[in-house]
Amino acid sequence: MARALQLAALGRLSTFPNPRVGAVVVSPDGEIAGEGWHQRAGEAHAEVFALRAAGERARGADLYVTLEPCSHHGRTPPCADAVITAGVRRVIVAMRDPNPLVSGRGLDRLRAAGIVVETGVMQAAALNLNRGFVSRMERGRPFVTLKLGASLDGRTATASGESQWITSSEARADVHRLRAEAGAVLTSSETVLADDPQLTVREFASAVPLSRSRERVAPQAPGEGQPEKLGAHSDSTLSPRLRRDPLPQAGEGTIFLRQPDRIVLDSSARVPANAKVWSSGARRFWVSTRDSATAPEGVELLTVPADTDGRVDLPAAFAALGTAAVNEVLVECGPRLAGALLQAKLVDELLVYLAPSLLGSEARGLAALPGLARLDQRLRLRYTDVRQIGPDLKITAVPEEG
Amino acid sequence: MARALQLAALGRLSTFPNPRVGAVVVSPDGEIAGEGWHQRAGEAHAEVFALRAAGERARGADLYVTLEPCSHHGRTPPCADAVITAGVRRVIVAMRDPNPLVSGRGLDRLRAAGIVVETGVMQAAALNLNRGFVSRMERGRPFVTLKLGASLDGRTATASGESQWITSSEARADVHRLRAEAGAVLTSSETVLADDPQLTVREFASAVPLSRSRERVAPQAPGEGQPEKLGAHSDSTLSPRLRRDPLPQAGEGTIFLRQPDRIVLDSSARVPANAKVWSSGARRFWVSTRDSATAPEGVELLTVPADTDGRVDLPAAFAALGTAAVNEVLVECGPRLAGALLQAKLVDELLVYLAPSLLGSEARGLAALPGLARLDQRLRLRYTDVRQIGPDLKITAVPEEG
Repeated sequence: MARALQLAALGRLSTFPNPRVGAVVVSPDGEIAGEGWHQRAGEAHAEVFALRAAGERARGADLYVTLEPCSHHGRTPPCADAVITAGVRRVIVAMRDPNPLVSGRGLDRLRAAGIVVETGVMQAAALNLNRGFVSRMERGRPFVTLKLGASLDGRTATASGESQWITSSEARADVHRLRAEAGAVLTSSETVLADDPQLTVREFASAVPLSRSRERVAPQAPGEGQPEKLGAHSDSTLSPRLRRDPLPQAGEGTIFLRQPDRIVLDSSARVPANAKVWSSGARRFWVSTRDSATAPEGVELLTVPADTDGRVDLPAAFAALGTAAVNEVLVECGPRLAGALLQAKLVDELLVYLAPSLLGSEARGLAALPGLARLDQRLRLRYTDVRQIGPDLKITAVPEEG
Repeated sequence: MARALQLAALGRLSTFPNPRVGAVVVSPDGEIAGEGWHQRAGEAHAEVFALRAAGERARGADLYVTLEPCSHHGRTPPCADAVITAGVRRVIVAMRDPNPLVSGRGLDRLRAAGIVVETGVMQAAALNLNRGFVSRMERGRPFVTLKLGASLDGRTATASGESQWITSSEARADVHRLRAEAGAVLTSSETVLADDPQLTVREFASAVPLSRSRERVAPQAPGEGQPEKLGAHSDSTLSPRLRRDPLPQAGEGTIFLRQPDRIVLDSSARVPANAKVWSSGARRFWVSTRDSATAPEGVELLTVPADTDGRVDLPAAFAALGTAAVNEVLVECGPRLAGALLQAKLVDELLVYLAPSLLGSEARGLAALPGLARLDQRLRLRYTDVRQIGPDLKITAVPEEG
């Protein structure tokens, strides 16, 4: 299963909106007969790749798969049927399908065919790898990571507003990687109008291993699942092949990058058609309260209600993104939206890059939290990770309930 | 030498204003013949304890000592003479005496007596253990550690001023330990008038190993250097014996705590005589520009010039503390003094306890740095350590030159 999870992770920059899934066929003599992972929506699922690679050796074999095989006809036929046809004896599953409407049906279909089924093996790792897909299925909205950058005293800009280059180039490269992994980047019209960012992936942190990308990329057994073969595909949303980080004690592979979707919250539809955030590739969503706005070419307008301040209603906006099949978003924005998301309890994970510098109490803050007068009203967090990225600290925290 | 450094560290809460020194006598057959460390000013030096414990076994032995043996008559006779008299063959020294006026004289005296002398062995560790003593000798001022506590977004109090309990009880206990290790705590009249703190050591973090206190406390060979014997001393500045932290893979010892000196910067001499900071024990310094102020019983008035804003001139204040034999100070203060010390480049080490919470941009900041308008004027730091203390992060940073 550990190997199947490694394979699943190979799709982490390309499967959106589908989940990341890996599969390994182990023949009765204990040898790996075939491997596969899901690569892109519309293409074959992991089990199919693995079973094809195994061929006749799948008969009587064990199939390790990180997600319950599907039982429905989507863009591909049901995987459960392929598993049954291949003559697999036992299926070991890390996690069930998080979609409550179909969860368990694939397993039932396998069991009905006489196949031994085990579930929950390395489930936590599988859930984490697909936290975006799970969030969309279970909560109807994407998993939300809020990224902030500041000096050690929590300042994002000097009193005069100068804000470029507070954190290091290593931290920026790390953020590019996060954009690629999230698959979607969200910001506010304020940020677009102030900075005109592209919010694309242009740098890959080559020297900064991230916990979620530490999977070993071992050389592949010959078969359908070769990353090298993927390079033959071409698609406007796929950039040229990027090398993965060199990893200790591992061979190197290549992995696909799909430019992330870009999402702008813009209640008054002020962002112009020539904003860089609308340029080329991936999906682009303009979330506004103005249904009369004319979206630029290639940009999808999502109209949502206004909140009491006339701004985009945040729960409605994220529900709309869930409906638009956005699994996970990285939010990069200013203090107003950051504070509003935190107060609306829409942040699942907070990443703070702290530069080794002090800007002083007159400088601009990280997150506006209006109305927070008493200390017992503070937003409580729990640190889950701290690491050094170049000269900066990267602190991961999750909001505490209540 | 590692053992001698461990012994030296046993005096880290009690030797002020003297340096922390440890010594080990190794007999020609390679066995430890005697150990000792300096315990308190006015008592015997480390070498004397170790040589006494070794007795006749010191003849022809090697002496490992963390600081160059002294060559002058102070409150005790010169150690160099005791080393010579004992018939030691070779002396290995971690660091020279940092006092430029006497540095090297002890070593010369040993060499003149035909003793083989080696220096610089584990020098960095010895220098770090005595960074306060070294600072006072070389720069004429104490080593300054600035301690700050804040929420993750760099806030020390809500907009309404509520500030208690931002960081955890574990962090507060850790600060008590730092007070004990520094030997002196400095604050401002603003803080005294607002909070009336005691600034004494009342809690010892029993579950939080600090890097500087990780030395193993091994059971002692019988001799003069027993920590148990120290308990027989009594002195108004010594609190009851405190147990050390339980350390993994180590026996437990006991160690002395001397309550830290308390220092208040108070340009206008506003702090009243009944302030808790003046209560009982240790030395208390009232640093003011008002030479007419009447110091309370037991409090020493240090008069220093005013700066252009009428406040205590900070370089003058720290020079006066150096003259008063203060080796190291832990500064606990509000944002104004914190910012002023940073801008005056008087901070050698910055400790920031970051609580896992957000208070919002309206809340109060960590350090006032007036006049910092451009980003290239920011105070640059370098992170040297990060660890978790209870639920909080403890970040250590040093200011970068320039």
